[in-house]
Formats: sequence, structure tokens, C-alpha cells
Amino acid sequence: MKPFADRLVDAIHSKNSRAVVGLDPRLDSLPDEFQRGIKKNVEAAAQAVLEWGGEIIATVAPHAAAIKPQIAFYEMLGPFGLVTYYALCKHARKKGLLVIGDVKRGDVPDTAKAYATAHLESFDCDAITINPYLGSDSVAPFVEMAKKQDAGLFVLVKTSNPGSGDFQDLKTADGRPLYEVVAQRVGEWGRELAGRSGYSSVGAVVGATHPEQAAALRKLLPQAFFLVPGYGAQGATAADVKLCFNADKLGAVVNASRSVIFAHEKNRSVDWKKAVEEAVVKMKTDINAALST
Amino acid sequence: MKPFADRLVDAIHSKNSRAVVGLDPRLDSLPDEFQRGIKKNVEAAAQAVLEWGGEIIATVAPHAAAIKPQIAFYEMLGPFGLVTYYALCKHARKKGLLVIGDVKRGDVPDTAKAYATAHLESFDCDAITINPYLGSDSVAPFVEMAKKQDAGLFVLVKTSNPGSGDFQDLKTADGRPLYEVVAQRVGEWGRELAGRSGYSSVGAVVGATHPEQAAALRKLLPQAFFLVPGYGAQGATAADVKLCFNADKLGAVVNASRSVIFAHEKNRSVDWKKAVEEAVVKMKTDINAALST
Repeated sequence: MKPFADRLVDAIHSKNSRAVVGLDPRLDSLPDEFQRGIKKNVEAAAQAVLEWGGEIIATVAPHAAAIKPQIAFYEMLGPFGLVTYYALCKHARKKGLLVIGDVKRGDVPDTAKAYATAHLESFDCDAITINPYLGSDSVAPFVEMAKKQDAGLFVLVKTSNPGSGDFQDLKTADGRPLYEVVAQRVGEWGRELAGRSGYSSVGAVVGATHPEQAAALRKLLPQAFFLVPGYGAQGATAADVKLCFNADKLGAVVNASRSVIFAHEKNRSVDWKKAVEEAVVKMKTDINAALST
Repeated sequence: MKPFADRLVDAIHSKNSRAVVGLDPRLDSLPDEFQRGIKKNVEAAAQAVLEWGGEIIATVAPHAAAIKPQIAFYEMLGPFGLVTYYALCKHARKKGLLVIGDVKRGDVPDTAKAYATAHLESFDCDAITINPYLGSDSVAPFVEMAKKQDAGLFVLVKTSNPGSGDFQDLKTADGRPLYEVVAQRVGEWGRELAGRSGYSSVGAVVGATHPEQAAALRKLLPQAFFLVPGYGAQGATAADVKLCFNADKLGAVVNASRSVIFAHEKNRSVDWKKAVEEAVVKMKTDINAALST
């Protein structure tokens, strides 16, 4: 298998899309046809999410480079939810989507190795997000497993939430904010995992809600793929995310969740699947258009 | 129900123990009687872990204040592993142990709420560990859920691994290391969750492998319970962990995993359960003795 970064570049080219669809099953937002009984028990909810997720995958597969299931929404449903998560990850890969497990794991080295095995082998994601707070030795087992499995990592550098500044923006003694110190390490961790495309399979999560910081990080990490959350419902536009890309129109993929998968909530004039399809096509097109101006 | 901090104080007093047993099922280390077929398939492994975990719980329940299952080792076994995790958490509570889910979750606010529901409701832990890298708004949903459920949180402040210094020890512009900045926030987050015992249900993870830093954090966070990893296999002694306690001999619980649950690997002269029991009793006694000198 090719390294993850190269597979991502291939997917972007073959689908002409830099869009990632967040598969985050918020029960309240599922279309009416999936609502029966899901508040009463988690088995019914997990089954509904499985069926809904299959439809989303079929709908977005031609238009998205990857899907990014947020595991928190599956864990909410207990062990049944994890069965659904497992099945949807497998299903998406079969349907030609790369799967980025949004798990944000991070732990001491031995435990990090267990997490890496869990998510890059057992749950078999193409890539996962990880949290760097525990330091280099906590990231190393993920890098090692990514190398072994031709998988990818997106390390949290600068997240999209308003409170991300509390620690990530803290100025360190040498004048750099913490997120830049982390970014520098991301570059180091990624050196071993450079693909033929010139991009590394160790990428970074960089929120589109902070455009200036994204632009600075883009310069600091030319070889890293950015996974860019915050598009759509969180307020970032195609113009904002443009700063996350390199001149080759690569180096970033942009995630939207609610604004795509629950597009029917704002667009009730069409069938829910049609609303989803229109939303993902518009997202893909808007980003491509912004990159061409 | 009482707030978590008060329930923890009650458990410490009723069992005369400040020991937490880490329930981390490393397959290679399970006693021989559980080894059959576990390398071949994850169902067999998950079943073996369920049976072994039940025996560990029965053995340590009279001597430990809490157990701390590390969810990474269950996630390694895929959905089956999460069934086992769920069942063991429930079982341990029935047997009179507080359950601290070592999940180290952390995410943007909406997702953090899903994680809080997952681990403090669906998996129904008494407390969980969380990662603060995403900032205050990412921690708030956990605090809110902890309040609603009388549950507890242990926020990663200074972890026990050698690499923890990479970011946690970084000096910020005002001269304080990052972990102290995080610690100050932990104190603020915990104010609303103070129990009758005087302790807050928002605690901190403070590695026993860094005794001076632990002593400084003890002064900075007088009301926080510390969850102290690093005892035993990771090298910290009863004298080291003493610095994590207040003068009332409260304010900390100490975790050991391998050195207790896999005590049979070093003590083959007795039955494996006897080895576990001797190890947890020795741990409890050694910590109490260190606190009395």
C-alpha cells in the first residue's frame, strides 16, 4: 500500500475534492425516518446510526476525499455504538473513502502503543487524530504504527474552538506560542514518513477559524497535510481555508460535519439525501473555486 | 449520591487504602489459565479479559479504593473489547470499588459533551481522566456532567512519562511552566465541585516520577485530589508519592498496574491470585506507612 499522504493526494485528484465529511451522528438531527425508538434504547440508536451512516457514505463517496467519524458520538451509545463505528469505518473504505478516525488519543508510551494498535489495526482507520500534550515519547508509538500500516496521523496543533487559545496560544519563554512549538515537533515527527508526493503522513489539525495562525503554520510546516475543521457550521469560509493550502493546491483537507450531513435541517425543499449531496458538492466546488482565484 | 470527592474520601477511610489498581489487560501477561486462543481472535481475548478482570476485582476489592481500567487496552480488542470494558466497570462498582475510567478524552465543546455522556453516563464511570490541551471550553462540558452525575474528573497536569517535559515543562512568558498554568485552571474548574470533605471532584493527574514538581503542585492545588501514576513498575516509591498528599493524609490516590495485577510474573512461588493480593496489600501498607513517618 502507498503511504497515507500519497493515498490522500490520489483521492484529492481522482475526486477533484479537498472535502472531508464528518460523520458525527447527533441523534436529534437524524432525518425523521431514523428517529423511531432511538431515544429509548441505545441498541435502536446504534442500528439507526448504522443505517443512516451507510446512506451518508453512499451519498458523499463520489464527492469527498475522506470521511471523519467522530468517535465520541459512537461512544455515547456504549458498546453498541462501537460496533456501529467499526462497521461504518469498514464500509466507508469499501466504498472508496479514506477514513480518518477522529479519536484524539494520547497517552504514555505503552498505552499509546495500545491506542495505535486499536485505531490503526483493530478499527483499521487510514488515519487518526492524536493529542500531543504528553510529549514526543507518547507520539512515537503512533508514528511507528503509522509507518508499519501506511497510515496517517493528524496531530492537534491549533484547534477550532474559541477556548483553544487558553493553552495553545500561550507565549513560551522564547516568544513562540505553544502551538508553534508543537508544530515544529510535528515537522520532526513527520520526517520519516514522507511520501513520494512530497507530503508526510504526519499531518496537523489546524482550525480554519484562526486564519492568520493557519497561514503562519502553513509556512512552518510545508510538508504536512492539514486537517482543517471549522468549515461551515463553525463559521469558516472557503476564503478562510485557502490559507491552509500550499501553492500546489494540496497540503490540506477541509472538514465539515453538520452543514453537510444534516443539510436537510436547513434545506427542507428536497429529499434529505439530495440535501446532503448538494451540500457536499457545493463545499467541494467552493473550496476548489477559492483555490483558483 | 455524594459528590465523587466525598465518596473517594469514604472509600479511603473504610478500606484504609489510598491504592488504585490499574486494570490494564496486557494479553501477554495474563496468567496461563487465560492464554488459550487469545492470540487467535479478539472474541476469545475479550472473553478471557472479562473472566480475568472479574477475578482481579474480587481479589483487590477489599484493599483498593478504586480501580482504573485503561480503555486503550480494551479498544485494542475492537468492539468486543468495549463490551468487556463496560461489563467490568459495572461489575467493579457492584463489588464496592470506585471506577476511574482512564480515557484521557478531550475535544471541542460539543464533542466533549458527547464524551462526557459516553463515559460518565453510558459507561457509567465514577470518574474519568481528561486532557486539557483544547482549553477551558473543552473542559466545561465534563465539569457540567460531573456535577450532574456526582462524578469526578482527573485532568492531566503532569504525566509520569519521561517525555512529559516536552510541552508540560515549557516555560511560559511569565516564568511558570505550562503544567502550572494548567494546574491553576484545574483549581478554578474545581471550585464549583467542592464536597463536604473540603476536596473538589475536579482532580489532577500528577506523576509520582517527578517528586519536586508534585510537591509544588500540592501547594498550588490544596483542594484537588491527585491521581498519581508511576508507582511500582514505573519506578516511584512510597516515599516519592508521600509528597502528593496533604497533611491530613488525603488528597491523593496512587495507581499501580503491572506491579499488582501481574504480580505473578515476579512472584511465581504462590498462586497468581495470591500474588496479586499480596502485592495490593503491600502497596496499601507501604503508602500508609510512608504517610505515618
